[in-house]
Amino acid sequence: MSEQIYVGVDLGGTAIKVGICNQAGQLIQTYEGPTETEKGVDVVVDNIEKYVRHIVDQSPYSWDQLAGVGAGVAGFTNVREGIIIFAPNVGFRDVPIRAILEEKIGKPIKIDNDANVAALGEAWSGAGRGIENCVCYTLGTGVGGGIIINGKIYQGFSGLAGELGHISVVPDLEAIQCGCGKMGCLETVSSATGIIRMAKDAVERGDRTSLALEQHIAAKEVFDAAKAGDEVAQRIVKRAAFYLGKSMAAVAAALNPEVFIIGGGVSKAGDILFSEVRDVFAKSTPEPLQKGVTILPAQLGNDAGVVGAAGLLLRS
Amino acid sequence: MSEQIYVGVDLGGTAIKVGICNQAGQLIQTYEGPTETEKGVDVVVDNIEKYVRHIVDQSPYSWDQLAGVGAGVAGFTNVREGIIIFAPNVGFRDVPIRAILEEKIGKPIKIDNDANVAALGEAWSGAGRGIENCVCYTLGTGVGGGIIINGKIYQGFSGLAGELGHISVVPDLEAIQCGCGKMGCLETVSSATGIIRMAKDAVERGDRTSLALEQHIAAKEVFDAAKAGDEVAQRIVKRAAFYLGKSMAAVAAALNPEVFIIGGGVSKAGDILFSEVRDVFAKSTPEPLQKGVTILPAQLGNDAGVVGAAGLLLRS
Repeated sequence: MSEQIYVGVDLGGTAIKVGICNQAGQLIQTYEGPTETEKGVDVVVDNIEKYVRHIVDQSPYSWDQLAGVGAGVAGFTNVREGIIIFAPNVGFRDVPIRAILEEKIGKPIKIDNDANVAALGEAWSGAGRGIENCVCYTLGTGVGGGIIINGKIYQGFSGLAGELGHISVVPDLEAIQCGCGKMGCLETVSSATGIIRMAKDAVERGDRTSLALEQHIAAKEVFDAAKAGDEVAQRIVKRAAFYLGKSMAAVAAALNPEVFIIGGGVSKAGDILFSEVRDVFAKSTPEPLQKGVTILPAQLGNDAGVVGAAGLLLRS
Repeated sequence: MSEQIYVGVDLGGTAIKVGICNQAGQLIQTYEGPTETEKGVDVVVDNIEKYVRHIVDQSPYSWDQLAGVGAGVAGFTNVREGIIIFAPNVGFRDVPIRAILEEKIGKPIKIDNDANVAALGEAWSGAGRGIENCVCYTLGTGVGGGIIINGKIYQGFSGLAGELGHISVVPDLEAIQCGCGKMGCLETVSSATGIIRMAKDAVERGDRTSLALEQHIAAKEVFDAAKAGDEVAQRIVKRAAFYLGKSMAAVAAALNPEVFIIGGGVSKAGDILFSEVRDVFAKSTPEPLQKGVTILPAQLGNDAGVVGAAGLLLRS
């Protein structure tokens, strides 16, 4: 029998990215087209179908070799029913995407949220390749997470497992309110948003720093300043790393994963972030729970979304 | 075919308790005999065999109906290989208990540590009956835990999943060192040992309290004083409950279990403990992660050990 292929769809607010993976999780080719969110749900869904058919047509594979299509989206999803409950970037609310795409494409369809899908991508063929149990953090605008157990995404009771950004880690007296409404969530300090907020606070306070924040400051500028030796910027990055390490220690005690993977824009801070995270994890985690456990940067970058989405067919 | 039965063994330092369960997790009868730790490993193992044979002989069931034997022990176990690595109370070190008992008893044998086994007992036929995903805390001398995923004990990478007592929850400046060597573990505040320590500290400090601690103060006296309105005792119980609730919020964000079960001696504190735990959990957990989630007292008491051990045959 000829080789089977899997198409992953990364459904974003401005672009839909599609990619073909083989059974080993290797990304063979990708294609990207506009989402056209402003034209409504039907057009967006038509575009998904169009791009999936296009990439398979352009590939060395036949349509018969396509085993199925997986899709990841930022938002709330009902994985079991295949419904996108709310995806603000794409303008979807209660869209039964699996049923619609199965009808249009005629192949098995799976969906999940972007953080779970990215985690699966890394576990399948990125930093966690070959690892059965790993935990992935995606440090972007918010902090997303995904728990991989026995090679598969773990959903939990109501599909909300892996909401690592909402682990409450900041002590009450230092805590600020998170977008979720609670105080002291990891997301308030270890996301790009958190880092930018801390940088703005420092500048407004008059801290002696090379940071001079205009309206469009990004986390990258804070990392650059930290690397150049700015102590205020270093303190901010270390604070983000400190609470990330603390949350990992808690997750390690509960779940004992083999590998922690850190991806997303904030992970680009590099050594200054990773060395502090590893240090705090080592200080806060009992020895036996550290043994053999590694903390690694994500490897797939922006491809994690399409790879993980393709992986949904085999690993969910 | 006639009904199958499962024998659970709770291997303790002074007594070995055995119990027969049916396939539904109902505990049908129990028997208890001395461990005789002082006579060495061979005698202890002979005693296990003797008590297992005895309880089946005394029961309405035949030996042929016995599907297997499970055993739980306080200590480090290698579940996959069936080895008790270190169980100080029983004086076992590197005892390949599964192989030995399989030879003696001629039935499948499973083992696990006491916290996992208690969690499985509660999940199988106690407070978590019918629930696929739950997390159990056992608040005793230490704080043990067990994670039940899809009805089974989750072991993690190196068999250490569920070490909930070593979640670091106390902020650094208030933290004391745990027996594990790390600072601020849940066990330092939410175990009986932690409660007794806080009570002793209060008395020694000269706090105005009805507690007058002699050498053999137990956590129960602190609970009684708290119930009688002693503010110092109330503060101690609330502190234990506060960090327990905080740890649950972290676990909920990572694992999204349906039910949290709290057992062990400290859970006997009752309402004052549970109401504070529920309150802190509600304050520290985003709404969607609270929805449908309950925090319940354990139901099986001391029987959780034998029931869960018997359950290992069906649920591991």
